[in-house]
Amino acid sequence: MGTNTLLDADRSAVVVIDLQGKLLEMAWRYEMVLAATRRLMKIAGLFARPVILTEQYPKGLGPTHADVRAVYDEIETPKRFVEKVSFGCGGDDGFNRALDEVLPDVAVEDRQIVVAGIEAHVCVMQTVLELLRAGSEVHLCWECVSGRGEEYRRHALDRMQQAGAVITNHESVAFEWARSKDHEAFGAVNRLLREGQIEG
Amino acid sequence: MGTNTLLDADRSAVVVIDLQGKLLEMAWRYEMVLAATRRLMKIAGLFARPVILTEQYPKGLGPTHADVRAVYDEIETPKRFVEKVSFGCGGDDGFNRALDEVLPDVAVEDRQIVVAGIEAHVCVMQTVLELLRAGSEVHLCWECVSGRGEEYRRHALDRMQQAGAVITNHESVAFEWARSKDHEAFGAVNRLLREGQIEG
Amino acid sequence: MGTNTLLDADRSAVVVIDLQGKLLEMAWRYEMVLAATRRLMKIAGLFARPVILTEQYPKGLGPTHADVRAVYDEIETPKRFVEKVSFGCGGDDGFNRALDEVLPDVAVEDRQIVVAGIEAHVCVMQTVLELLRAGSEVHLCWECVSGRGEEYRRHALDRMQQAGAVITNHESVAFEWARSKDHEAFGAVNRLLREGQIEG
Amino acid sequence: MGTNTLLDADRSAVVVIDLQGKLLEMAWRYEMVLAATRRLMKIAGLFARPVILTEQYPKGLGPTHADVRAVYDEIETPKRFVEKVSFGCGGDDGFNRALDEVLPDVAVEDRQIVVAGIEAHVCVMQTVLELLRAGSEVHLCWECVSGRGEEYRRHALDRMQQAGAVITNHESVAFEWARSKDHEAFGAVNRLLREGQIEG
Repeated sequence: MGTNTLLDADRSAVVVIDLQGKLLEMAWRYEMVLAATRRLMKIAGLFARPVILTEQYPKGLGPTHADVRAVYDEIETPKRFVEKVSFGCGGDDGFNRALDEVLPDVAVEDRQIVVAGIEAHVCVMQTVLELLRAGSEVHLCWECVSGRGEEYRRHALDRMQQAGAVITNHESVAFEWARSKDHEAFGAVNRLLREGQIEG
Repeated sequence: MGTNTLLDADRSAVVVIDLQGKLLEMAWRYEMVLAATRRLMKIAGLFARPVILTEQYPKGLGPTHADVRAVYDEIETPKRFVEKVSFGCGGDDGFNRALDEVLPDVAVEDRQIVVAGIEAHVCVMQTVLELLRAGSEVHLCWECVSGRGEEYRRHALDRMQQAGAVITNHESVAFEWARSKDHEAFGAVNRLLREGQIEG
Repeated sequence: MGTNTLLDADRSAVVVIDLQGKLLEMAWRYEMVLAATRRLMKIAGLFARPVILTEQYPKGLGPTHADVRAVYDEIETPKRFVEKVSFGCGGDDGFNRALDEVLPDVAVEDRQIVVAGIEAHVCVMQTVLELLRAGSEVHLCWECVSGRGEEYRRHALDRMQQAGAVITNHESVAFEWARSKDHEAFGAVNRLLREGQIEG
Repeated sequence: MGTNTLLDADRSAVVVIDLQGKLLEMAWRYEMVLAATRRLMKIAGLFARPVILTEQYPKGLGPTHADVRAVYDEIETPKRFVEKVSFGCGGDDGFNRALDEVLPDVAVEDRQIVVAGIEAHVCVMQTVLELLRAGSEVHLCWECVSGRGEEYRRHALDRMQQAGAVITNHESVAFEWARSKDHEAFGAVNRLLREGQIEG
């Protein structure tokens, strides 16, 4: 675990936390979160990186936002869907098994987990701190993470950074996975990014 | 002491510092501080976590704000009231005894102290640094901490974070104490939080 | 050197850097810097803490602002005046001798230097980093430090904090030197602070 | 590598990354970046410090902005021009050779690399993290670094700072290289800075 590392595609996975419609629409700048997370998942697809999608207590809180689910269903890459009742994903055996399955040859302390989702100060916070304590690196995409209340979100990002998370964004993720314009996936990634930069 | 830890209910206590009427009403966004601290104390009650309430020289500065005192009196949980003349609570033997009494089986270096109160750059600062130096963890609720002058408060939060305090909020405290929606206290906590998010 | 320490009066000194009229009036929020530094020096006087006043090349840049000089002349406390040509005070033998003279019984690594002055990103920066590298603690008063350009100042404060300086203010300095309302100097300090909080 | 060091002229070099016209004009506050980087290069010239100028895939993205190139051509100091396809300069052998050539007697871990360029969250990020991981110090000039999107830039600066980069500016660079008003280059530097402070 370090804060001066770049992402290596072969030890990275994406985790998308609790982007359930009811909750998501209460989050600050949720359209940005929605657009950026969709793009992040497509980028994972282009680099064939695994994606884990979680839902918190869907019976009560409803399913993942349809636009997020559509991309999840569409991308061709190792993927896992996890339903949970614990706020932090690490409190759920199914989540930990899913991580082991999608990164079978990567030791926990070598893993680089790219995180999107809500709420920054609740389920994202608990998941990120659990991952960091386990020894994995966390790269948190600021434009893919939110929650109710701008100030709650801002301080949550600071706390995760203080704990050792790297605050990044889906564009940086893409360029780090590629490293060079000559990477075979870069042409397709570049076309996607040229649709315009996602802003708040 | 770490900055990547989540709160564990069984080693946490809440400290509410000097929310005396005269001082409180001079603090930046004091209604937010008042509302959030009241809710934090109710949450402590629901999880049966101890609460210590302090007053700085009440003969001169007056008693705790009536709305804070009312919740303190109402909650059924281990609690202690401490009058002091030192600015930092740690300079007062009564405060240190109170901590030992409410967390009798938790070593100083395992304690997680959740802090609310005023003023960020004076009594809260000195208390937080004393607790950190003793080896305890401090989780400071940003929406429960203020003082005269927004800029004084902001830099004080930064300094406490730099010294190792975690900047959190009462909602994160509640979700970390619960960890899962199936925690027995979560139903009541959830009803409390649904009254609306407290903002500045 | 730590970032979780409070000031102890008996190992502290105040350094006021290059508050020369010509330069000072070009600094962002210079009236605040002027008022706060004057008060900081008076507080040093009340606690009998030493004050070192420096000037950068006064032949070219002119003397210290008259309002700062007046307080320097008036306070009864160990004091030293240093003229220099190096931007950082540590590059000047006279400055280092002055520190040794006013804190004769305090080892370099036990010293707590309270800093005011301009410009944040030039002479203050070089002085603070030299002090930190020598092993002393630096407590930088944000409202007593400025320079041309708000953004230059802001990033300079961040850099000094990253290097290990504590960002504080003259009120926190006073309450840390006193520690308790029963300190013999606190009555006079309290009267001074009641003249109103200094803001930008 | 530390974050409490000042620049020493004899172990410093300047790296100017990908200030190509097409890209540059899409960057936030690009006129500031342009003016400040030009001045930084002139300062390097006055102190006879080496400058490395890079271009990302110029066939596709076009050449360096003419105003930057003009200063590069004009200054009399060791200089190298590097074309690359990897986003991070460290992924390019030519860049690493250029650094060795312009700082032949300075061990990698003693090097202080002053960085300007775009985009903060892509090529600058990857270059800076590579330099830090190699053990060199990085001094990043905030007013010489940008990219599309203010928020992308801001978080990128934070990430580089967290990784150990020092956030500085061309004025601080000049005053640290000089250390004293009596440095032989300071007269010329001072004339340059008196043309006015560069702001956003």
